[in-house]
Amino acid sequence: MGDCIFCRIVAQEIAGRIAYEDADLVAFHDINPQAPVHILIVPRRHIESLNAVTQEDAHLLGRMLVVARDLAREHGLADDGYRLVLNTNRAAGQSVFHLHFHLLGGRFFHWPPG
Amino acid sequence: MGDCIFCRIVAQEIAGRIAYEDADLVAFHDINPQAPVHILIVPRRHIESLNAVTQEDAHLLGRMLVVARDLAREHGLADDGYRLVLNTNRAAGQSVFHLHFHLLGGRFFHWPPG
Repeated sequence: MGDCIFCRIVAQEIAGRIAYEDADLVAFHDINPQAPVHILIVPRRHIESLNAVTQEDAHLLGRMLVVARDLAREHGLADDGYRLVLNTNRAAGQSVFHLHFHLLGGRFFHWPPG
Repeated sequence: MGDCIFCRIVAQEIAGRIAYEDADLVAFHDINPQAPVHILIVPRRHIESLNAVTQEDAHLLGRMLVVARDLAREHGLADDGYRLVLNTNRAAGQSVFHLHFHLLGGRFFHWPPG
């Protein structure tokens, strides 16, 4: 956990461009954006990936989506649209092993999704 | 709702290749797969998109993710990895206006995600 860059952003040991925070969740702008708006939504608690969640985390996970939706609205993405992506492990391209949703918007997205 | 193809799959009026079902959620294989495993996870209840959810839906939304994780495990994707995608509105490519997660696995995924 001490080496987790997202834990360090959550703890404000590293400066992130914070978009939202509450008791359980933090959202910040991706430093390598793939769209005009690219925000990461993470739980404060270190959860390595979706593989590591339990049934008891369902409400927390769902709140990540509600916060993503609220951020999409706030950033003017709601009408045109936005894509949410959650990568688990290497084949999907998970690069930081602290569970995070990507919220991407402000452009057209292609199919397949990578 | 009568015209919603996912509602009709949920109601078994149209045959879908069902991967999972419970009282609240149904999962079925995409008829136009973008990866060796491509499963859609939907709520039984017709929710048009993530824009239409409320705070009260957080648990249901989180359960969609837990079910996706369980399906990934069941289909042998957990170790190598898998990508989850949720498209909202046209710019993101939402084609069916009944909230659904795409679970994709069995290949390497590129970045950006479409």
